Amino acid sequence: MNTLRILLISNSTLHGRGYLDHAEQEIRKTLGNSRLVLFFPFALFDRDGYAAKAIARFAAMGCEMKSAHHATDPRKAVAEADAIFIGGGNTFRLLKALQDLEFIEPIRRCIREGAPYIGSSAGANVAGPTIKTTKDMPIVQPRSFDSLGLVPFQISPHFQDPDPNSTHMGETQEERILQFLEENETPVLGMREGAWVVAGNGSVTLGGSRGARIFRRGETPVEKTTGDEISSLVGAPE
Amino acid sequence: MNTLRILLISNSTLHGRGYLDHAEQEIRKTLGNSRLVLFFPFALFDRDGYAAKAIARFAAMGCEMKSAHHATDPRKAVAEADAIFIGGGNTFRLLKALQDLEFIEPIRRCIREGAPYIGSSAGANVAGPTIKTTKDMPIVQPRSFDSLGLVPFQISPHFQDPDPNSTHMGETQEERILQFLEENETPVLGMREGAWVVAGNGSVTLGGSRGARIFRRGETPVEKTTGDEISSLVGAPE
Repeated sequence: MNTLRILLISNSTLHGRGYLDHAEQEIRKTLGNSRLVLFFPFALFDRDGYAAKAIARFAAMGCEMKSAHHATDPRKAVAEADAIFIGGGNTFRLLKALQDLEFIEPIRRCIREGAPYIGSSAGANVAGPTIKTTKDMPIVQPRSFDSLGLVPFQISPHFQDPDPNSTHMGETQEERILQFLEENETPVLGMREGAWVVAGNGSVTLGGSRGARIFRRGETPVEKTTGDEISSLVGAPE
Repeated sequence: MNTLRILLISNSTLHGRGYLDHAEQEIRKTLGNSRLVLFFPFALFDRDGYAAKAIARFAAMGCEMKSAHHATDPRKAVAEADAIFIGGGNTFRLLKALQDLEFIEPIRRCIREGAPYIGSSAGANVAGPTIKTTKDMPIVQPRSFDSLGLVPFQISPHFQDPDPNSTHMGETQEERILQFLEENETPVLGMREGAWVVAGNGSVTLGGSRGARIFRRGETPVEKTTGDEISSLVGAPE
């Protein structure tokens, strides 16, 4: 069995810090000896600008990076990459592009074969079985909400705790996730900004800062903190 | 030409008030002499509970109400109604039910023929051409994002202004709407909680409290306050 190395980051930029700075050490660890990282800029409208920003940031970590929006042959581009990084933005726009440009199957195969996967925000959302727990606006319609399914649980990044002083009557993120569980049985990991999760073969560990909450149908949400093993999310005993 | 009477309410319950209390006068005005109101409870999971709540609230206004989830024949149920009220909850769940149960065309016809339409929150969202400006979580997948199209502009209810003191890095509602306009040309009405809009033949007027913002591609967002004519949203001069 190949070794899975999946890093899902709640947010690419923590307040007051630079792009990916708070997660740099974990990104380096996930990449290992990967030379060529393929970047997916499709969650933002300005693909060129986004790719330039990511390429510069990974160059500062000593990594060569190409952007998937320049690829003429998706299968070849993914096959040639040593690692995948999918950046944040709008999850619907991202998933629609991955579907329309036929990137879904090549990425799944590449990760199954042991290439590291790093996803931030929308890029973390699409690593789950579906995008049904995103907070993003459905600005375009993907042909399906099914996404990469690299991990068997749902991600809900940028998780915000209810504000007890709020007079706003719209649903909180927790209430929205409970609505998801009225209709679906997949467990959900709500990651606060600053948090990330590292998934390997049969193991999931919470990293970063500020922690996360696990939501399961019919159960009280469970609080998890940095360093916690949360491998029950992949069916393993904890 | 029949007279259109459409009332789209940002939120059904204003902080500190009872269900629909803040909009009661406008609801009564919109209903006019309508005797039988058909209620659509599909945005919430507990349809029976939701219908009971709405039926009691409309009874207090002297209206008879039936719930569409009890209808065996959608066309007949809509045709027999004098007015339509679609309640809030999850917009994806609501639209999927309207599509699956074949309610879309009967409702469109009924409103074109002059029956009043009242929609709150998710029920306001589905009155636009698509649900692409909802903030709700995509917990189920409707076959299409196209919705009732009773008005030619997008609704984004529960509009929240950016908080200048926030350290949260997720997109604000305004940023999300601007992302929508990167991909679509339909103007968007972001209604704050407390606000509503009344649409008739060629006219749109903002009511309630706290106002709204109009977003158009390539233009600076425009602030509107209670009583403002915003008929440019339906192509009329203001």
